Amino acid sequence: MMFNTALYTDLYQLAMGQAYFLKDKHRAEASFDYFYRKTPFEGGYVLFCGLEDALSWLEEVSFSEDDLKYLKDQGFDARFLEYLKGFRFTGTVRSVSEGELVFPFAPILSISGPVVECQIVETFLLNTLNFQSLIATKASRIRHIAGEDSILSEFGLRRAQGYAGLQASRAAFAGGFNSTSNVLAGKTYDMPISGTMAHAFIQSYDDELKAFRDFAETRPENCVLLVDTYNTLESGVPNAITVAKEMEASGRRLMGIRLDSGDLAYLSKVARNMLDEAGLQYVKIAASNQLDEYVIRSLKEQRAAIDIYGVGTNLVVGHENGALDGVYKLCSFGGHPRIKISENLKKMNFPGDKQVYRYFDSKGFYTADAITGVDAPPPDGMAHPFEPGKKMRLNPQEARPLLKEVMKDGKRIGELRKVKDIAMAGKKNLQKLPEEHKRFDFPHVYKVGLSSEIEDLRNKLKAEKLSKYQK
Amino acid sequence: MMFNTALYTDLYQLAMGQAYFLKDKHRAEASFDYFYRKTPFEGGYVLFCGLEDALSWLEEVSFSEDDLKYLKDQGFDARFLEYLKGFRFTGTVRSVSEGELVFPFAPILSISGPVVECQIVETFLLNTLNFQSLIATKASRIRHIAGEDSILSEFGLRRAQGYAGLQASRAAFAGGFNSTSNVLAGKTYDMPISGTMAHAFIQSYDDELKAFRDFAETRPENCVLLVDTYNTLESGVPNAITVAKEMEASGRRLMGIRLDSGDLAYLSKVARNMLDEAGLQYVKIAASNQLDEYVIRSLKEQRAAIDIYGVGTNLVVGHENGALDGVYKLCSFGGHPRIKISENLKKMNFPGDKQVYRYFDSKGFYTADAITGVDAPPPDGMAHPFEPGKKMRLNPQEARPLLKEVMKDGKRIGELRKVKDIAMAGKKNLQKLPEEHKRFDFPHVYKVGLSSEIEDLRNKLKAEKLSKYQK
Repeated sequence: MMFNTALYTDLYQLAMGQAYFLKDKHRAEASFDYFYRKTPFEGGYVLFCGLEDALSWLEEVSFSEDDLKYLKDQGFDARFLEYLKGFRFTGTVRSVSEGELVFPFAPILSISGPVVECQIVETFLLNTLNFQSLIATKASRIRHIAGEDSILSEFGLRRAQGYAGLQASRAAFAGGFNSTSNVLAGKTYDMPISGTMAHAFIQSYDDELKAFRDFAETRPENCVLLVDTYNTLESGVPNAITVAKEMEASGRRLMGIRLDSGDLAYLSKVARNMLDEAGLQYVKIAASNQLDEYVIRSLKEQRAAIDIYGVGTNLVVGHENGALDGVYKLCSFGGHPRIKISENLKKMNFPGDKQVYRYFDSKGFYTADAITGVDAPPPDGMAHPFEPGKKMRLNPQEARPLLKEVMKDGKRIGELRKVKDIAMAGKKNLQKLPEEHKRFDFPHVYKVGLSSEIEDLRNKLKAEKLSKYQK
Repeated sequence: MMFNTALYTDLYQLAMGQAYFLKDKHRAEASFDYFYRKTPFEGGYVLFCGLEDALSWLEEVSFSEDDLKYLKDQGFDARFLEYLKGFRFTGTVRSVSEGELVFPFAPILSISGPVVECQIVETFLLNTLNFQSLIATKASRIRHIAGEDSILSEFGLRRAQGYAGLQASRAAFAGGFNSTSNVLAGKTYDMPISGTMAHAFIQSYDDELKAFRDFAETRPENCVLLVDTYNTLESGVPNAITVAKEMEASGRRLMGIRLDSGDLAYLSKVARNMLDEAGLQYVKIAASNQLDEYVIRSLKEQRAAIDIYGVGTNLVVGHENGALDGVYKLCSFGGHPRIKISENLKKMNFPGDKQVYRYFDSKGFYTADAITGVDAPPPDGMAHPFEPGKKMRLNPQEARPLLKEVMKDGKRIGELRKVKDIAMAGKKNLQKLPEEHKRFDFPHVYKVGLSSEIEDLRNKLKAEKLSKYQK
């Protein structure tokens, strides 16, 4: 696996690693928090994704001989390179489950171990968790608007960002899609694959009907015919009906037709009527062409007769955002809590090792998250993280801890979870999030707060640093 | 290399491949064009990137035993799987050079060979060329506004889309950046790597000055100190000046300081004055924090004292677009030109094997591109591709062909080009594009047209298909 090298990192991680090492600070125990600040897509939540890939990487990451030779050529110190020869990640990871919903500023993953190790692995963790969480979140929005009855097929590989296509397909499935067109992703992650046909196949024939017949004959199951190469309603759909009838005569069934251009709402309704009048109620209609949650919302509003949505580019690149702004911040070093100062309270981290408790109402819906010290019980109230004096009462009996140990001494705890199970968990978790947090326009802001312990610690460290560094 | 499998494709390519194979059409010679329709970033051009990676992939791609077993489990026909055992790409590629500027609708790459091969490799080619061209284009815009005197460092890996980070760094360098923070990319593509330090290192110390001293001591060259952890002007910059003076005393030089928050224009000017007053004119100022071409334009307008721009997220994900809309269209099959019909003239392809001629003015600037038949001489005029009757005269003596054979019988012609050479070519090519096509706001549209041969062929095939498929 070409990316299982610790070189898939930023140079400064190695420069800092060398400094820690040469100053004999590298074994000091440090903790870093992973969290994000801004929900993407102007939405109300993030569906956390990528954890199992991250843990697999942490278990396997090392420097090859060739990597070390490269670093030598870049001027790294021989003593540090000797240390890197045996480099493995030996730390602890506590994390929210993959497929769980997470909210701004609350720690999602906490990593502890020798500072040099935590520093070197930072870049890959951010890279993987930021991207997969972005795409899973996008996918969940599309599922939300399409409804459970629609079939959602991801086929973005051609416009995916290079090799990211592999991870995009995984995250789309985790976020609620039924299948991917990406064969390597299907094989790698054991996910259903699906596909129809392209215009090129039909163009390679002199006759559309002959092309349909040949394709249907060689694809006995799940055959979907693309009907817009020449003329959707005057040629494509009638020819598909002809082939569907021929298939019936030999005891088979056409799975569907695909519309890839024109007015999808109008064409789907007319095509549905044509199919129904031919007694082909079972033939599904698939639609594609620059779809996203907003186009699908519009198609649903128009009562388009679409059973299968094929979604590509906008899903796999996480349009309009392209990135989740997740960060990785030192919160503890050598057993002492740490803070970064900023004029902007939102840019300061919450110091110390922490736990996050999620509170539930009597029907099991999520109500709030409280950030506490790592070993503290669930608090009976919390403070607004950035508006001093704003408080909220909580019932500790309704709380459950979100961060659980998933890796110890560099080894994953338990089995690697299947993407299918993560997708199932994501679906259930989304049902527990009240609707007002899921709407697209101005979603209600989910409450995240600080226990008095964490708030006091932040204020104390902030005051100390200000008195030291400000004139 | 985990992605060197033909499984990194869409399922429908294999479904169509099987249909071609079982109908004994798979050996038929086909040609496909790669081109795009819409310039990203509302700009005036695309900097073509990714070709060498694509050729390397074509040379190596195959199906492993394990891949074939997976396809068997997916229901593929045993005869087709037997054929795939020996699958290699054996065709021909004619292409624009990597690092050349390309414009909407003109073929950028033309691939010819047995139809089954061209079909299976489609997805990877689109994936690689679309993404790298997007990022190289973004990088070139940032270079354009930053000017040749600025140092541009890419450090987007933590927000890059998963594994795409490797290719993003390559494309950013090809598009004009000086270096990347991505160590694996530096090693893989032989590109300069650079990096500074993070807040975590400073926070791990009780004292900022001590942290600076230790870091400077262990990083003898290219040391850049991050000055905004506690207080930029009252602590960070003064401490950096102290360390720079100490370095001078031992015959060394601090390379720079980095600003990562606050008002970069204001802080850079004040910091510049402080450094200059300390006699540290040589210490450079680096700035980072959500930079892109627009923020840099604003900083330049304010005469910010910034020497080095560190650009991350917005570059490596190609914000605001996320994808180039490149497509791959069948233009010839079995020796006959092919067309796809659409109500929208822009959605119809140009049929037949083609060449593109670029015309130059007397000063060497690019003036227009004409699309002709593959063996035709440069035409003395061209037609607007979508506005019938609109013509333009051309001087054939000023034309040079853009598509050149880069792969024959599945083997690359000549050596793999280094990214450094591609970046150099890109820089020169950009100088030949008139300024009005490079401006950010409403850039002048570069002229791309059709020779009368291609226009006539399109009209003839369109009429044939319309009469056949329209009632």
